[in-house]
Amino acid sequence: MLSSIKRFLIGRPLKSNELGDQKLNKTKALAILSSDALSSVAYGPEQILLVLMTVGAAAYWYSIPIAIGVLVLLLALILSYRQIIFSYPQGGGAYVVSKRNLGMYPGLVAGGSLLVDYILTVAVSVSAGTDAITSAFPELRPYNVGIAVLFVLFLTVLNLRGVTESASILAYPVYLFVLALFILIGVGLYDIATGHASPELHTKIGTPVAGLSLFLLLRAFASGSSALTGVEAISNAIPNFKEPAPNNAAKTLAAMGSLLALLFSGIVFLAYYYGVSPSEEVTVVSQIAEHTFGRNALYYFIQGTTALILILAANTGYSAFPLLAVNLAKDKFIPRMFTVRGDRLGYSNGIIILGLLSIVLILAFEGKTEHLIPLYAVGVFIPFTLSQTGMMVKWLREKPPGWLPKLVINTTGAFISFAVTLIFFLTKFAQVWSVLLFLPLIIWIFTRIRNHYEAVADQLRITTCEPAKPIEGNIIIVPVAGITHVVENSLNYAKSLSADQIIAVYVNFEREDQIAFEEKWKKWQPDVRLVTLHSPYRSIISPLTKFIDMVQRKASESDYQVTVVIPQFIPKKGWHNFLHNQSSLLIRAHLLYRRDVILTTVPYHLKK
Amino acid sequence: MLSSIKRFLIGRPLKSNELGDQKLNKTKALAILSSDALSSVAYGPEQILLVLMTVGAAAYWYSIPIAIGVLVLLLALILSYRQIIFSYPQGGGAYVVSKRNLGMYPGLVAGGSLLVDYILTVAVSVSAGTDAITSAFPELRPYNVGIAVLFVLFLTVLNLRGVTESASILAYPVYLFVLALFILIGVGLYDIATGHASPELHTKIGTPVAGLSLFLLLRAFASGSSALTGVEAISNAIPNFKEPAPNNAAKTLAAMGSLLALLFSGIVFLAYYYGVSPSEEVTVVSQIAEHTFGRNALYYFIQGTTALILILAANTGYSAFPLLAVNLAKDKFIPRMFTVRGDRLGYSNGIIILGLLSIVLILAFEGKTEHLIPLYAVGVFIPFTLSQTGMMVKWLREKPPGWLPKLVINTTGAFISFAVTLIFFLTKFAQVWSVLLFLPLIIWIFTRIRNHYEAVADQLRITTCEPAKPIEGNIIIVPVAGITHVVENSLNYAKSLSADQIIAVYVNFEREDQIAFEEKWKKWQPDVRLVTLHSPYRSIISPLTKFIDMVQRKASESDYQVTVVIPQFIPKKGWHNFLHNQSSLLIRAHLLYRRDVILTTVPYHLKK
Repeated sequence: MLSSIKRFLIGRPLKSNELGDQKLNKTKALAILSSDALSSVAYGPEQILLVLMTVGAAAYWYSIPIAIGVLVLLLALILSYRQIIFSYPQGGGAYVVSKRNLGMYPGLVAGGSLLVDYILTVAVSVSAGTDAITSAFPELRPYNVGIAVLFVLFLTVLNLRGVTESASILAYPVYLFVLALFILIGVGLYDIATGHASPELHTKIGTPVAGLSLFLLLRAFASGSSALTGVEAISNAIPNFKEPAPNNAAKTLAAMGSLLALLFSGIVFLAYYYGVSPSEEVTVVSQIAEHTFGRNALYYFIQGTTALILILAANTGYSAFPLLAVNLAKDKFIPRMFTVRGDRLGYSNGIIILGLLSIVLILAFEGKTEHLIPLYAVGVFIPFTLSQTGMMVKWLREKPPGWLPKLVINTTGAFISFAVTLIFFLTKFAQVWSVLLFLPLIIWIFTRIRNHYEAVADQLRITTCEPAKPIEGNIIIVPVAGITHVVENSLNYAKSLSADQIIAVYVNFEREDQIAFEEKWKKWQPDVRLVTLHSPYRSIISPLTKFIDMVQRKASESDYQVTVVIPQFIPKKGWHNFLHNQSSLLIRAHLLYRRDVILTTVPYHLKK
Repeated sequence: MLSSIKRFLIGRPLKSNELGDQKLNKTKALAILSSDALSSVAYGPEQILLVLMTVGAAAYWYSIPIAIGVLVLLLALILSYRQIIFSYPQGGGAYVVSKRNLGMYPGLVAGGSLLVDYILTVAVSVSAGTDAITSAFPELRPYNVGIAVLFVLFLTVLNLRGVTESASILAYPVYLFVLALFILIGVGLYDIATGHASPELHTKIGTPVAGLSLFLLLRAFASGSSALTGVEAISNAIPNFKEPAPNNAAKTLAAMGSLLALLFSGIVFLAYYYGVSPSEEVTVVSQIAEHTFGRNALYYFIQGTTALILILAANTGYSAFPLLAVNLAKDKFIPRMFTVRGDRLGYSNGIIILGLLSIVLILAFEGKTEHLIPLYAVGVFIPFTLSQTGMMVKWLREKPPGWLPKLVINTTGAFISFAVTLIFFLTKFAQVWSVLLFLPLIIWIFTRIRNHYEAVADQLRITTCEPAKPIEGNIIIVPVAGITHVVENSLNYAKSLSADQIIAVYVNFEREDQIAFEEKWKKWQPDVRLVTLHSPYRSIISPLTKFIDMVQRKASESDYQVTVVIPQFIPKKGWHNFLHNQSSLLIRAHLLYRRDVILTTVPYHLKK
């Protein structure tokens, strides 16, 4: 039943050699990997204006130079990640680059930040998208959290089905969003050029503004750079591209960078020209759209595709998280299960864990994730800084032909990213302090896990360990609960092995019972030694364990091996198990983890 | 950790032979077994007036003849249960009496009704008690359900500690309640005798009333008999009494009957004399108390002890349910686990299940259990009817000396109980119809469980079954995941047994991997045959199972036994298990329930 639900939801299992079919072409890759970055346009410009608003509407013209700053940062990031793509064609992004060039701990800082950041991507994007929908249909507002959770479940199933299939579904909304914004910007610029738009709504660039500090401008710049979250996704996902993967990835990155730059500049410029002021109820994009078209079909088209792309931006997390998890798991920093491909060849464990954790975040914050956005941004800029510093170190160390311009690019990127990170900590400490607690914690967990895996490997490796203990003989203990076919079956099996001694053990609660049983036993199995243990506290496990310990101690002195043969009858139907006391399972569970004895279960399958 | 919490809550474990210490003397037994019956006084009289009120206040005088009818029923029940106590000194009440005299199905109807009724006892009493408390302290009302659940948990822990200890705690409130009502009735009667109470408040007995039908009177009578729920508790619990148990139980029953009769008559009479009219906000007992004392300390004393005894009435369920469950489990109608005594010699499983189910009821009905009361009463009168019919049959069949008066008593009881049951179905069908669905269902479950136990016993019994299959030889299969100490350990063990053949099986996901592994194996274990299985769908279980099936088929042709030896390393700390794929456990779980192979786990305990 469960299995057929699974088949219905995620499709038939795929063979390992069908993997090639799942690779992405550039068009699909652009859709699947850039929805996060492109959707940031919906809130990035607004973040700048929100900071400037604290001084007054006269300061809005500063959004133009700030946007130019963000574009420079974007250019530096795109160029830098292009260099990373060609240097690390196996993928990995910030984690791999930092680890290789700066060492393990910087790598773990980058990896840990990104891992959590992808969870935030899903939670924040889905919540924001849900807000957009419930703003349009206020009667749905009470079900906000439920709708967000449903979207996460939907995305999880989509990704469990496999990469290509989800891309096909995701491609349309992303391109529709791009189309919608191009129409908006195009019509807006045409209106301005033809004089249809009033030039009276904005203050001229260069107008002096009272009370404006460098600190405030930097803060506005940092806020604006939240529009750049998501640009690293492509460099993590190179192995998902069709061959030649690095070239295709680089071209996709360039296309994404250009689209992002155009949309971002267009929105910032129109917002400035129309003198849009951010408000609680209506987003900046919505105001621009209303100003340009009025509330007609095109307005709803723009609002609809914006909502859609915000929800699909969460999908970037689904593409990036499992791949990063594979890299961390291969290096033994997180559990090995993240490297296992599921039925549809996706890294199912990573996909499922990501879905679960983002649902937890959505529930914990009741879908109100506004104050998670700075945390989200700072979690992106830490790995940006580290990966570009790593590239700087790489160029300085290797000095390949033409390294100087490359070094300049990465140095610029590293410097700006570091500055943005610092500004976040200086200006929004109340919202981002938890990073300072969380990062050391996750790095401590990473290293503990790695230490464990290495200790296990050391102990299992044949060459390095002490030689195995020889086995000089076998002693078999059979706990028996009565004179039944189940016990007979187990005794027959024990006798068929060349054991040196077989001991049947019976635990009794009443003294009278003991004598009667011993007599019956003598008649039934005269050749098998019976030991009866009295249990005044009505526990089977504790006297049995004590007895086995005693036998085990004596046996190990002469290198004898103790095997406990547990008779277990298997009922025909699952629900029958509730009707039996499961002593066999309890005994087994208790002995397995605590004692150095071998446990054999002899099943007796009931026929009715 | 868990274990020390358990010790703190329920105390040290007791030896089986300490059982005698837990027996009840009469004073404690009266408190522990009659709180349910006595607390019914708090709502029984009110139920009569509620029905009469539908015709008008002039009809209130009918409460006196109706109360006399209830007293006759009480007398019949007490005398009948007295006869049951002496006839069935091992306890059992309605279930045992009906089963012995009327047959299995009537017994199951009685047993099933009572089992569910005890759950209702707990849920209804605790909820009603909580209501009484939150009526006194309205600021607690929002936490009604939580408080009720806490009380259930408290009672569960109390009962897990053991019978005597809970009785000590319970004795005081029950006797305080009896004292409080005696003071109330005494002062009330004194006031009336001395002319302090106005004789103008009630209509004279015999005043004709318009619109009063026999149907209505019967309904009022049935409602009033809800005050008799709980009188069967003593006859179920005879084994809990000190010796001579039947005599002590009979005396306790007589004491309880007398107290119940006195309190019930007193309350009905005062309510009639004061002309009390039932209301939504204030209970009848509260109105009488206010009329007698005004709102002084005595009033609060009466209200407080009423609330307390209602909650403690739930404890009757805790005394009766586990004992009935033992009787049903001994007859194999419910799972065997209900016959096991816990650390403190109580039947812990029954106590815990009762606690859980009543919490479920409280949560499902959000603590509003008013409409469960008729269901609760009908669930009591069905077994009343059956047990007394059973006694009738017994007397007619056995005809011991002096059987005629006994037969008369039981026939009267049976007739009235049956009439009350019928009236419930006729007048309150909307609230009690579910009994007609539920009883057949529970009886069907009972018989299915019994059939299963009997089928198992048949199959296990040495004398009746086919002889065990001989074992001519052993084949050992060792699934291996690599070349490690864990595998080495398992192979050494396999070699130490006199197996005819040892086969190592390796499942590989990649073809290249297979050849490399085969070569390494040849160097490492040249004398052990290695079979490699390619798994294109990345599953270990499915190719392994197919291979084992194949070997098993061949082996069984020549009566060879197949043993699967599973290497398993046991990490040093519990959390380490999350870091490993648990393939061993999965393989074992999969094979145990589906295949007829013997499973041996060879643990390899890691040291760090």
